[in-house]
Amino acid sequence: MTSSPYQRVGIIDLGSNTTRLIIMGYTPYHSFRLLDEVRENVRLAEGIGEDGKLRPGPMERGVATMRLFATLCRSNGVLRIVPTATSAVRDATNRDEFLARVVAEAGLEMRVLSAEEEAYYGYLGVINTIELHNAFVIDIGGGSAQVTQVNERLMTATLSRPVGALRLSGRYVKSDPISKNDYAALMAAIDAQFDGVEWLNGIAPGTTLAGIGGTIRTLADVDMKLRNYPLDRVHGYTMTRDRIETLIEMMRGMTLKQREDLPGINKDRADLILAGTTVLQRLIRRGGFERIVVGGQGVREGLFYEQFLVGENPPVLGDIRSFSVLNLARIHGFEAIHSAKVQELALTMYDQLGKLHGYGTAERELLAYAATLHDIGLAVGYYDHHKHGAYLILNSALFGFSHREVVLLALMVRYHRKGDVSIEPFASVLEPGDQQRLARLAALLRLAEFLERRKSQIVQQLRITIGETIRIDVEATGDATVEIWDANRAAGLFRKAYGREIVIA
Amino acid sequence: MTSSPYQRVGIIDLGSNTTRLIIMGYTPYHSFRLLDEVRENVRLAEGIGEDGKLRPGPMERGVATMRLFATLCRSNGVLRIVPTATSAVRDATNRDEFLARVVAEAGLEMRVLSAEEEAYYGYLGVINTIELHNAFVIDIGGGSAQVTQVNERLMTATLSRPVGALRLSGRYVKSDPISKNDYAALMAAIDAQFDGVEWLNGIAPGTTLAGIGGTIRTLADVDMKLRNYPLDRVHGYTMTRDRIETLIEMMRGMTLKQREDLPGINKDRADLILAGTTVLQRLIRRGGFERIVVGGQGVREGLFYEQFLVGENPPVLGDIRSFSVLNLARIHGFEAIHSAKVQELALTMYDQLGKLHGYGTAERELLAYAATLHDIGLAVGYYDHHKHGAYLILNSALFGFSHREVVLLALMVRYHRKGDVSIEPFASVLEPGDQQRLARLAALLRLAEFLERRKSQIVQQLRITIGETIRIDVEATGDATVEIWDANRAAGLFRKAYGREIVIA
Repeated sequence: MTSSPYQRVGIIDLGSNTTRLIIMGYTPYHSFRLLDEVRENVRLAEGIGEDGKLRPGPMERGVATMRLFATLCRSNGVLRIVPTATSAVRDATNRDEFLARVVAEAGLEMRVLSAEEEAYYGYLGVINTIELHNAFVIDIGGGSAQVTQVNERLMTATLSRPVGALRLSGRYVKSDPISKNDYAALMAAIDAQFDGVEWLNGIAPGTTLAGIGGTIRTLADVDMKLRNYPLDRVHGYTMTRDRIETLIEMMRGMTLKQREDLPGINKDRADLILAGTTVLQRLIRRGGFERIVVGGQGVREGLFYEQFLVGENPPVLGDIRSFSVLNLARIHGFEAIHSAKVQELALTMYDQLGKLHGYGTAERELLAYAATLHDIGLAVGYYDHHKHGAYLILNSALFGFSHREVVLLALMVRYHRKGDVSIEPFASVLEPGDQQRLARLAALLRLAEFLERRKSQIVQQLRITIGETIRIDVEATGDATVEIWDANRAAGLFRKAYGREIVIA
Repeated sequence: MTSSPYQRVGIIDLGSNTTRLIIMGYTPYHSFRLLDEVRENVRLAEGIGEDGKLRPGPMERGVATMRLFATLCRSNGVLRIVPTATSAVRDATNRDEFLARVVAEAGLEMRVLSAEEEAYYGYLGVINTIELHNAFVIDIGGGSAQVTQVNERLMTATLSRPVGALRLSGRYVKSDPISKNDYAALMAAIDAQFDGVEWLNGIAPGTTLAGIGGTIRTLADVDMKLRNYPLDRVHGYTMTRDRIETLIEMMRGMTLKQREDLPGINKDRADLILAGTTVLQRLIRRGGFERIVVGGQGVREGLFYEQFLVGENPPVLGDIRSFSVLNLARIHGFEAIHSAKVQELALTMYDQLGKLHGYGTAERELLAYAATLHDIGLAVGYYDHHKHGAYLILNSALFGFSHREVVLLALMVRYHRKGDVSIEPFASVLEPGDQQRLARLAALLRLAEFLERRKSQIVQQLRITIGETIRIDVEATGDATVEIWDANRAAGLFRKAYGREIVIA
């Protein structure tokens, strides 16, 4: 880590409510990781009135935080800083005064993102981390909300409206719990902002809505805690329309104090979440969306992809799943040649056994990814490295995968060496048949691993004959008795998963 | 990992029952980690009769396994191999024939350890991994058992007796369950071997007995599973004399099949564990030991320390605890300067608050180690790196610490950034008062971490005034408002743990 040849970049996003710095370490096009993150609840837009001026207190906090972030970057060897501001600064009538102070006192030339740019970077953060083709993205911030239309992974339309969670809360969430009148006024104010936007009408049923920003992440956190969700992972979490309606109903009846006591909520979010969620709900109703998939990455990460994929326009990864798997493997120093051989052997068995398992390309792809990742747990320690590998997968940012897929990957790695396959405690994230699916895929991965026991790439070809007993004939460049012996000993899971005898010869 | 500048050494230990290869990556004196381990159940001593000859079948298995290990080493870039054999080869009348075959067919010149050398390397494996001063070590193998006396960390006496688990099982464990007569004969045979050894008499009460070898590790595994022990960690596990007596009674009444069904037992251990445990029990009774501490490291690791501490005689680490902590930190690429500053700040607070917490040097030492390790979780990922750090500590070989201490270290790291301190699910490993102890230590670590928030070593001195409110005056080389601000925000745990207000200025 300390000795890594990574470049470092600090990305600052000064919003109306919160302000964040992320420090990313990266080698362009190759790999990256988050090195540090600092979040300050600056509330820069607090108290803005009719004159549209930032108030002295919030302005002071904003400048102090920029100073803090700048020194943090410098003392951490960050040479390039990308400091940006969004609607609070954009819309302020005294923005020049504020920006001049940040230059003078923090040494940072802030870039004020236009509404369209803000939407664009939010889109980049989403499109590089969630598998989307035709979709809509909503980003609910403190001051404004952006809605973006995505066609074939490209941004085709966008709008920005002053319906941020902080702005609306200040104006409409005054009674506690909120009164019927206040709530009706809140809804009407939101609806008025979206009226007349043509491309929000007639959205095809089944179109995906992706949501980013602090409000939506917090809502997902609360929902996961309430449901005792088995994963600690916001990115990729989905919520149905019905569920969101239920949460709104629940929160409408609560006092601020009660909302603060919700599990998974930060104190500084409790007063904003009702208005923010209402924005989301109004958009869902208008667009007829059935569910929302939550993104953990947004404008900051979008700005980062412009650095990471420098020179590409737009800076969008061609295949986010395979990149993300490789990134994780690289971070943990995987052995590329050994992993590729295990992958090759597992896939040839998968293909030749097609008639027997009946699975398709989706399972094949997951098996391939699991092969790439199967040994990353060695970075933790040799003993139980299959368990460590599963831990690393469950606790890493794997992009483009559903939670079910992340769990399947983790469990394939968990069972690539030993153990009886169990889907506990993740059953609620999986689908019917996944226990068997997992056992069958893990059985192939295990055989492949032992056929490459010496990491010597000695096995060249496998020919499988399907009968009462499955027979695998091994063709090797040298003496493969060791591999064949070990593979036969590791075939117990195969027998269980496929219900047939197997001989490797 | 793959890019590490580590040297690699393969250590082979060909025993009467199992045979193992470990591959260690290391930089002499600096750091090491286990890269691979292969275990084969060769049972080389199987069927040896009055003529003392290794039988053709076992000999063939032995040669084949040496061939496998040699090719495994070569295809993994291991240039130095240390192949050793113990009692099965040592005592065989046809040992020269076997050794010649291993040279011819596997290319390995095996070193046959004398009984005294075997005991010596077992001692090295123990003395470098368990905190012992005056103690006894028992190593129960397949063919023989070694007992060693340790005075002031030096080996002062040793004996080796042909009471290995495999040898005894073959001779005495014939009835199923074992008959009273057979069991009495087993005990008598063991006792006869230890009669007349003067230094086994009159052992001071309270003297530690450390135990190594497969039998004892398996026994510990079974016991942990039966007790639902919250850690998955054999090294450092302790069992009382009473508990061992209970386990013996239980296993004596079982058939082989029933023993195979015990949790935590390998099939190839189920037929050996009764005889092996009986050897342990007889020694415990004779020596009047009250408990045994289990070692996960033995002859192989002892041989490794001779490579790692090359040139030192004996190759014994001066301070196994501090080395082990540093080794773990180095493996995960810790930031030495930042960690040292956090340690310094935490310890000065600890010292100045002595009157308030009343703890001594033991707690002080743990706090210092936790500071060294506090950020290792960054190797997994930034988010939740406090949790990842705890995971790494709980799943790593930390030597010289009791399980309680390992848990305290892990939980200090767990709570070094945030969270309300909880000792679940580890309460059964801890002592009364540890919840508060942990909270108080973690509170100091947290303050120290935030006083070094920018990793800039800006804070030079802390002066604490103890009153109704604790006051910490910060002396810094530059503007420390950021650190002071963050530390004040992180002081909630301190208030709870010490029951006093605190102001950092």
